[in-house]
Amino acid sequence: MSSDIEIARSVTMKPIGEVATKLGIPDDALDNYGKHIAKVDGEYLKSLKDKPRGKLVLVTAITPTPAGEGKTTTTVGLGDGLNRIGKKAAICLREPSLGPCFGVKGGAAGGGWAQVVPMEAINLHFTGDFHAITSAHNLLSAMIDNHIYWGNELGIDSRRVSWRRAIDMNDRSLREITSSLGGVSNGYPRTDGFDITVASEVMAVFCLATDLADLEARLSRMIVAETRDRKPITCGDIGAAPAMTVLLKDAFSPNLVQTLEGNPAFVHGGPFANIAHGCNSVSATTAALALADIVVTEAGFGADLGAEKFFDIKCRKAGLTPDAAVIVATIRALKMHGGVGKNDLSKENVAALETGFANLARHIENTKKFGVPVVVCVNKFVTDTDAEIEAVIRLTKEKAGVDAVLCTHWGEGSKGTEELANKVVAMLDAPREAPFQPLYPSEMGLLEKVETIAKTLYRASSVAATPAVAKRLAEFEAAGFGHVPVCIAKTQSSFSSDPNMKNAPEGHVLPVREVHLAAGAEFVVAVCGDIMRMPGLPKVPSAMHIKLDENGMIEGLS
Amino acid sequence: MSSDIEIARSVTMKPIGEVATKLGIPDDALDNYGKHIAKVDGEYLKSLKDKPRGKLVLVTAITPTPAGEGKTTTTVGLGDGLNRIGKKAAICLREPSLGPCFGVKGGAAGGGWAQVVPMEAINLHFTGDFHAITSAHNLLSAMIDNHIYWGNELGIDSRRVSWRRAIDMNDRSLREITSSLGGVSNGYPRTDGFDITVASEVMAVFCLATDLADLEARLSRMIVAETRDRKPITCGDIGAAPAMTVLLKDAFSPNLVQTLEGNPAFVHGGPFANIAHGCNSVSATTAALALADIVVTEAGFGADLGAEKFFDIKCRKAGLTPDAAVIVATIRALKMHGGVGKNDLSKENVAALETGFANLARHIENTKKFGVPVVVCVNKFVTDTDAEIEAVIRLTKEKAGVDAVLCTHWGEGSKGTEELANKVVAMLDAPREAPFQPLYPSEMGLLEKVETIAKTLYRASSVAATPAVAKRLAEFEAAGFGHVPVCIAKTQSSFSSDPNMKNAPEGHVLPVREVHLAAGAEFVVAVCGDIMRMPGLPKVPSAMHIKLDENGMIEGLS
Repeated sequence: MSSDIEIARSVTMKPIGEVATKLGIPDDALDNYGKHIAKVDGEYLKSLKDKPRGKLVLVTAITPTPAGEGKTTTTVGLGDGLNRIGKKAAICLREPSLGPCFGVKGGAAGGGWAQVVPMEAINLHFTGDFHAITSAHNLLSAMIDNHIYWGNELGIDSRRVSWRRAIDMNDRSLREITSSLGGVSNGYPRTDGFDITVASEVMAVFCLATDLADLEARLSRMIVAETRDRKPITCGDIGAAPAMTVLLKDAFSPNLVQTLEGNPAFVHGGPFANIAHGCNSVSATTAALALADIVVTEAGFGADLGAEKFFDIKCRKAGLTPDAAVIVATIRALKMHGGVGKNDLSKENVAALETGFANLARHIENTKKFGVPVVVCVNKFVTDTDAEIEAVIRLTKEKAGVDAVLCTHWGEGSKGTEELANKVVAMLDAPREAPFQPLYPSEMGLLEKVETIAKTLYRASSVAATPAVAKRLAEFEAAGFGHVPVCIAKTQSSFSSDPNMKNAPEGHVLPVREVHLAAGAEFVVAVCGDIMRMPGLPKVPSAMHIKLDENGMIEGLS
Repeated sequence: MSSDIEIARSVTMKPIGEVATKLGIPDDALDNYGKHIAKVDGEYLKSLKDKPRGKLVLVTAITPTPAGEGKTTTTVGLGDGLNRIGKKAAICLREPSLGPCFGVKGGAAGGGWAQVVPMEAINLHFTGDFHAITSAHNLLSAMIDNHIYWGNELGIDSRRVSWRRAIDMNDRSLREITSSLGGVSNGYPRTDGFDITVASEVMAVFCLATDLADLEARLSRMIVAETRDRKPITCGDIGAAPAMTVLLKDAFSPNLVQTLEGNPAFVHGGPFANIAHGCNSVSATTAALALADIVVTEAGFGADLGAEKFFDIKCRKAGLTPDAAVIVATIRALKMHGGVGKNDLSKENVAALETGFANLARHIENTKKFGVPVVVCVNKFVTDTDAEIEAVIRLTKEKAGVDAVLCTHWGEGSKGTEELANKVVAMLDAPREAPFQPLYPSEMGLLEKVETIAKTLYRASSVAATPAVAKRLAEFEAAGFGHVPVCIAKTQSSFSSDPNMKNAPEGHVLPVREVHLAAGAEFVVAVCGDIMRMPGLPKVPSAMHIKLDENGMIEGLS
């Protein structure tokens, strides 16, 4: 069996200008990065703003397990399937982060015959967007400490600098540091630390901003510290926002690449869905909607995280209306939710599948609460048996009232998603049963928003917020930020905050450890359980297997 | 008067393919980054290896002062001047670092009518080379701490991890930190810190490696820590070199841009000359020499730092023979060396100029010691008077025995360097008076090498090396590294290690604070005086003035 990178390399890519032509993008609106990647010019995109928008399809998934689901793969496969049946479709993905790429998860450009290419470039530096975001983040960090060093005219309380530093690397040893050690010329020592770039508020702002002016205004509003009497200090007060915007100027233009079948794919922005809002950029999605009749996009991890944030944060704030959702499941993963261990996944086990189906059922039920029509994609593995396939399709129809379609895009490309594509088109053409609506209204209190998500979607019995957390939320409300959505940071491995609670737990308690106001991104982050904003590396990181072979070709990326 | 960025923008750039054609580079050997930047394919460059090499001209300078000299500007101007008089000439520059760009120095793409363009891109992220180097550096850092975290099989002494972290930012608060705080899941706390990326050994290796295989081998040999019994641990032991090479693969191909006059310019690699070896990449210089008849390159800061390292490290190791050197001086800077204060530089003062001429004279004398023919470029400022110009040209001829040529490239482009270009061509065509030779033989002892540079070039009376430094150097020699050159890290503002000793000080003592073995780059760094490997920001950093204007154009970069 060929590896992802071998499959990707076996296909001859089209010149990117040819791919752009499919969407009617003229050559002079492209800035090429090599022969197969282009940034689409922002001025050209502005000229599209009055064009009718295409339909928006979200690909989300069941709760992830080590058995895998294939959400990005399905997004790519469905995009190719829609093109195969004659639709003008584009996909919108997030950019991969170097952290997981060299850590445990690997790249994020799809897999098998459903990939975006050039996968090596996309998985590594790509067009440098994450580097630009990291630089902008750290310029602000440096300017804050520099302000304190040169006399601290703003009166920043160095114990209350909330703006940390950022790096696109899994590096646990930078989670908590003491900085400015070494004496007079190095400044005032203080507690500090690094988050991974995908968790940076700059990343969130980058993904939610509508244009460069909005980007700069949002950056300027980010709160970075407080004075001794608790007055907030913003990025604007520090004077860093204009230079940060300059650093982000080129990055802000969406990246265009292609699927293995030569169909257009925007890959832009990439916050994680467990520690951030987990959706690709509004600028790319808006561009794609103006250029294509159907846009397929993804949101990170399970629907409890990715889809909820896609609906409640991205769609709400950007004025987008999702027209359909595809929930990806695998039989192996459902069996794992049903109690099967990793080593027994290849054996037929319909009973475990029926048990684990509860996880899928809840994600379907949850997604419907937003008024979005749902179809399930069963992403086929070679070990799936006929009885298992029959069971999952039947259960989905009987118990959850929606269709499930078996898909084989990993092994066959768009041939394997033709049925799914037809089903999605039928859903898009059908009259809408309910209007799209976020889970909670903007005017709801912040703690109540967390409780609504926890109880309605996670089926927690309650939220455990310490008095400190409750007080902080009340302070955010008093400061005029009560209307923003909440962005839950929690493990992706469970509906609860405990990664070991598989399947469909109920009656658990969601502990809110701390809350942060992202005044530029316009949401409040609620950190639940043990989730960390900086991952570590495993004992044998993927980096140990990534190398150039004797012909100078990259090996070991997946 | 127009700013650099306004002048740069007033010129219509050629498509980069057209610029490449001047050097005979075919279109399919280019990977475009936008319309005006390309990376030249490594496989194509390999095919050139048996082509005859062009002549190599180094542009260096007097000891820098706040009055400015214009080394990069002169490199660009001379390249344009040579093209103007019908020569097939290319220039090779270093890539600017974001640190100084947002700090005090500004960009590094030349100035006035002698710039490389697109200057905004070159000064900011460019093709992402520095980001790739930073990522590779920090992947290794993360893997070292990760190795310790997961059981430390190699027995690394966490007090003796010499591999620090890197960031392309002026950030004094990261000079010295304590990392891995916060308990069990964050690792073993230890003293750590960040250097600016241009000081990273990965940058030096990147600039000195001849191909990707050599790059990986050098990375692998870098020493990152020691065991408790002082056995060295290398990057190869950690297993990081192959993945680092993958991260650097695209970056390793030289970048091609153009001057304002449309002539070819390679801009690749960018170590600082005060804290690193200060020369652009061997890969770019070698490529340019195979493609052009004359290659003009620069080395950072004054000739005591840049030219010495260019000759003793880069040329020695890469087997390059410099054919001529241009020493750039300004009348303002010489007057400053002669004791004139910054506010009085616009007043005619031939006496001060005669005093300050000693600085230029010593740089000329020093450069000649390498057997390299010298010409002086007097880079004209509007405030220079006829009497001053006459004096500096006369003194150069009378006292130093070489020609000085008045140049006006800043205001007039290649028209202003025509005479200099003719003079350089005459030098290249003349029979060589002496062969090129490094200042010291490779087999000389390490401390003796430092002493040779200090006494012969800096005119120090002696070197003050602590017993610890002497012991460390002896250890490097015992470990088989006695044959490598030394790379002095010291202030650029004086021949001595004291930035306040202007002009041509003698009899000073060079204090060696610490020494580091760069086993991958193959030199020993001797840190002298107070020089820091991580700069800080000034009270009002350039970042405060860099912004997008109302039309989305960048303002404030210089």
